[in-house]
Amino acid sequence: MTKTFRPTPLLSRINWPRDLRMLAPEELPALADELRTYVIDSVASTGGHFASGLGAVDLTVALHYAFETPRDLLVWDVGHQTYPHKILTGRRDRLATIRQKGGLSGFTNRAESEYDVFGAAHASTSISAALGMAIARDQKGDDYNVVALIGDGGLTGGVAMEGLNQAGYLKRKLIVILNDNDMSIAPNVGAISGYLLRIARGQIYHKVREDVAHILKKLPGGDRLAGLAEYLEDGLKKALVPGTLFEELGFKYVGPIDGHSMPSLLRTFREAKAIDGPVLIHVRTVKGKGYQLAEDDPVFWHGPAPFKVETGEIAKKTAPPSYTAVFASALVELAEKDERIVAITAAMPDGTGLDTFGKRFPSRTYDVGICEQHAVLFAAGMATQGLKPVCAIYSSFLQRAYDQIMHDVCLMDLPVVFALDRAGVVGADGPTHHGVFDLTYLRVFPNMYIAAPKDENELRHLVATAFTTGHPTAIRYPRGAGWGVAMDPQLRTLPVGKGEILRVGKDGVVFAIGDPVMPALRAAERLAVQGGPSLTVVNARWVKPLDTELLTQFVKDGTKLITVEENQVMGGFGSAVLEALAERGIRADARLVGIPDAFVAHATQAEQRAELGLDEAGLLATFRSHVEGAGRAPGSNAGNIANVVPLSVVRSA
Amino acid sequence: MTKTFRPTPLLSRINWPRDLRMLAPEELPALADELRTYVIDSVASTGGHFASGLGAVDLTVALHYAFETPRDLLVWDVGHQTYPHKILTGRRDRLATIRQKGGLSGFTNRAESEYDVFGAAHASTSISAALGMAIARDQKGDDYNVVALIGDGGLTGGVAMEGLNQAGYLKRKLIVILNDNDMSIAPNVGAISGYLLRIARGQIYHKVREDVAHILKKLPGGDRLAGLAEYLEDGLKKALVPGTLFEELGFKYVGPIDGHSMPSLLRTFREAKAIDGPVLIHVRTVKGKGYQLAEDDPVFWHGPAPFKVETGEIAKKTAPPSYTAVFASALVELAEKDERIVAITAAMPDGTGLDTFGKRFPSRTYDVGICEQHAVLFAAGMATQGLKPVCAIYSSFLQRAYDQIMHDVCLMDLPVVFALDRAGVVGADGPTHHGVFDLTYLRVFPNMYIAAPKDENELRHLVATAFTTGHPTAIRYPRGAGWGVAMDPQLRTLPVGKGEILRVGKDGVVFAIGDPVMPALRAAERLAVQGGPSLTVVNARWVKPLDTELLTQFVKDGTKLITVEENQVMGGFGSAVLEALAERGIRADARLVGIPDAFVAHATQAEQRAELGLDEAGLLATFRSHVEGAGRAPGSNAGNIANVVPLSVVRSA
Repeated sequence: MTKTFRPTPLLSRINWPRDLRMLAPEELPALADELRTYVIDSVASTGGHFASGLGAVDLTVALHYAFETPRDLLVWDVGHQTYPHKILTGRRDRLATIRQKGGLSGFTNRAESEYDVFGAAHASTSISAALGMAIARDQKGDDYNVVALIGDGGLTGGVAMEGLNQAGYLKRKLIVILNDNDMSIAPNVGAISGYLLRIARGQIYHKVREDVAHILKKLPGGDRLAGLAEYLEDGLKKALVPGTLFEELGFKYVGPIDGHSMPSLLRTFREAKAIDGPVLIHVRTVKGKGYQLAEDDPVFWHGPAPFKVETGEIAKKTAPPSYTAVFASALVELAEKDERIVAITAAMPDGTGLDTFGKRFPSRTYDVGICEQHAVLFAAGMATQGLKPVCAIYSSFLQRAYDQIMHDVCLMDLPVVFALDRAGVVGADGPTHHGVFDLTYLRVFPNMYIAAPKDENELRHLVATAFTTGHPTAIRYPRGAGWGVAMDPQLRTLPVGKGEILRVGKDGVVFAIGDPVMPALRAAERLAVQGGPSLTVVNARWVKPLDTELLTQFVKDGTKLITVEENQVMGGFGSAVLEALAERGIRADARLVGIPDAFVAHATQAEQRAELGLDEAGLLATFRSHVEGAGRAPGSNAGNIANVVPLSVVRSA
Repeated sequence: MTKTFRPTPLLSRINWPRDLRMLAPEELPALADELRTYVIDSVASTGGHFASGLGAVDLTVALHYAFETPRDLLVWDVGHQTYPHKILTGRRDRLATIRQKGGLSGFTNRAESEYDVFGAAHASTSISAALGMAIARDQKGDDYNVVALIGDGGLTGGVAMEGLNQAGYLKRKLIVILNDNDMSIAPNVGAISGYLLRIARGQIYHKVREDVAHILKKLPGGDRLAGLAEYLEDGLKKALVPGTLFEELGFKYVGPIDGHSMPSLLRTFREAKAIDGPVLIHVRTVKGKGYQLAEDDPVFWHGPAPFKVETGEIAKKTAPPSYTAVFASALVELAEKDERIVAITAAMPDGTGLDTFGKRFPSRTYDVGICEQHAVLFAAGMATQGLKPVCAIYSSFLQRAYDQIMHDVCLMDLPVVFALDRAGVVGADGPTHHGVFDLTYLRVFPNMYIAAPKDENELRHLVATAFTTGHPTAIRYPRGAGWGVAMDPQLRTLPVGKGEILRVGKDGVVFAIGDPVMPALRAAERLAVQGGPSLTVVNARWVKPLDTELLTQFVKDGTKLITVEENQVMGGFGSAVLEALAERGIRADARLVGIPDAFVAHATQAEQRAELGLDEAGLLATFRSHVEGAGRAPGSNAGNIANVVPLSVVRSA
């Protein structure tokens, strides 16, 4: 898989950080340039996270040079900026495999390298994990360095503040590097972000200076003393500004440092190693550094598809509209007619489609930063006052707000709408990003309504329906393009808790939900064409309330039943069906098809679904084997799943 | 239910805040004294949350006097300090019913009063919810005040910082009152707490003054200028300190204010109402104010049982040791032999039993504050470095760390032990505190191991076992006393994923987990004595891995099977049993007994279990009806549950 790009006189000699540390400091800027070029060429070829990694190239080189990795621990946050780190730590030649089946992960991964000391992908975790490592080090009587990196975006997440709060209190030796580029994926928001910007611009310092001048003026003979303020400059700067906020939290603050100046970085890291307590180094970087187009538009270049390096031209695919786009346009349409509808995103306006909504309704759109907990509470507060908030949050990130969904929404039965994008398997982002737990974790809460559309047209109507239930209502839909079905011109509400019959057969029943409904239907059609068993296919549409009327209409004692979902089998939709049948004393012969009890590694969505038996071919095989009673088919939840878990994870049963 | 305590000349005239606002300001301290007495007498009679409410008496009076409640919105955090608020808002005469079946909730509750604008119980939610309300107010063009209260303990929770961060950014009119008493339930921890204390003691101000003096000394002719520092005092104090941290977050900081001085409180609130933007009022209060014993030991008096007012004497019950105490002693025993064991609590050392552990191993015990997310990440970091951390967190509070359990523990398969106290129904604290979702929300994650002991002796061995699995392992056990069983002198490990047969019968099978195993066994014994069906009873012990060998040994096509758990039926243990049977093609006649799809209101644990059919009598009735096939018994999940949901919540199916 080795790709040869431009000649790399220095980089080609660097296989491990120990090679890097043989270079003279003066050689590092040149190495960083080569590294940047390597990243650009590689991501241009494969696609992947881009602008964050480019911004961190100099930082990465300086870190591996100044610290004795892997003995010293680098704890990256999010991890999508670690392509340069991967290149320098034994994975250069595999970078072209990144995010592909069997290839490197797009994030840090303990199973992949000893240099990846902590897995990441969700933001804001590094400080807390690193503090745990520092405590363990001290308890063992060891003396290695622990370095947590975090972006200014990651710092908005509450758990990062929790980590700072305890680190500043415990006073253990810990280095936190704040990689500040004014961005989450989108431009950053929040007061802390504004504070960092004021530091960077020197405004805080100037404000203090003005305050002092003002005070001195008011003293007796003050005019004469006003000039004194200037003398106070150096000392005040040192004593008071910038970074007071971090100093108040118990950290020694160092910065702001130019994150693209190798001498500054090296000097700062050398000094930081000598500090016996928590220190925060504020590094300013430019997202997309070294690729002008990415510097100019870092949002677009956050994670591009393959592109031409020279022109930035991205190969466009023609595809049906994405579920995301369909959600966004339906929401805009609804909001045109109901001004109580407001939309909330946790730092993902583009990913969730709320950029569209925000352009149309800027004063009804709230980007709260990487703060899913706050997003849900904020929505709950709005709902108490009569607004109709929708929280558009990826399924896996909504896990951050789990307690708020229970305690602050469901318990008070507040009509908050949850739009869970990226439900099911998500492809290249891999196991941290799959939205495969939500049907289980949401349906356990009383008052929660949960639906999943079979296609993009149904999504439109379910979005409209969600605002009419009067209860907390989640709509979950997959990443990527819809099926290309015809779109109804008019939005309408669908009956709550009611599924639809797509096909009637005599040999068995398929009860399916969400994206796999279409392949299930096609599989049943094909099976019939092949002269196989004839199956009823139901689009359940709602996981909760479940359409038990439709279920009991078709399912009796002994009925061959197959449930299909793109969620873990454990506790999911099929499990809900089994509960409903048990409650009614119906003993069907049920097979549950979904995701087995393992984490699904990164690959394309099509590859993942094929391996899980959730595509048409897999479902066809399962339907035939179950209904014909010829034992268990591969791909069912009873099948061998070793092929989908190349990660260091195991089945737990 | 009216209780008459001491004469209350003022309080008896106050039924609603509008009555309060008829008083002259000079009368308020006397009213506050009466209110304090009323709280003391009432809690002495009923038990309940105590010291926090006493500390907030003056604040509560001042708030309802200064603001036009309920038009102005008071958003309380946690809500256990709202007994005085309840007394002043139409609920005085029902205070004696608090936390009892059919009586007032121990927390704020929207269904109970329009003055309770947001439900609470879990900490740190008020700022975010209040900000949502303020946004809604502005969007509606209204002008009422929104006041969020939060304790210094609550402020340690990350979501509170997320809320501050956005509030300071959006700049809407919002009043945040920081009720600072240096305490969570336990003495508070963390850097922010230290910061608040330094403000209160004036240390920050003094530090700045020293810094300035130091700077001036270093100037040419500095000695002569040193005296200038004193002249700078007032101005510097205003310009720079205290509250810089909040000012940097975009708030106007006011304080610290004496929270027991009515004139200060009233003046401050009056001024705050005029500020058009976010303001944070830092109020210092004494937890337990007005009851000397509680002031002296606010941890003990956080939530006492009924007591004698004069002496503080609390009626002791003799009872078997609590699960909490058994967990704590087993953990100490294990830690004596393995120094890698470390324990983490999120501000609940007493409630989790880690106070015991902390006394024995102070350097291996970490109270992280009300920071469950950080607690789990911190543990994960420790586990990567070879320590054996246990997170002892109540089941319902662990919901806060849901994403960390998946993303930072299970995905990396790190051997973190979770000790989930307060699993199942918890009695008087009610629906916010029940630990009835955990079997569902935990078992969906790959690599997770989950066990629940049938009694306190088994808990000892499961704690020992948890450290040997090499995987994330949760042990969940109920609030309160054990069964009084004999305790084995030696700790031992139990086979992972293996249940035990308690009784063998021929007419049906009971598969039970956790606390209900004992009543299930007794019910089966009694049924046999009564000449009813003869049942096999299995203590499943592990929810994951499930003992499918034992299951299939006893359960065949047509077997009458009853699963029993103190968890929601949806997605829980019984659901896992159904999945396992479906996977093996076994069609049993199964009944799932557990908690139906509703929130269970506050009452005693015994009352709750009786209503849920989870006590011996309820189980006996269900066993008989299911095995004899005489229809569905009340108390099963198919039964009528209206009697257990007096809250404003409904079944969603």
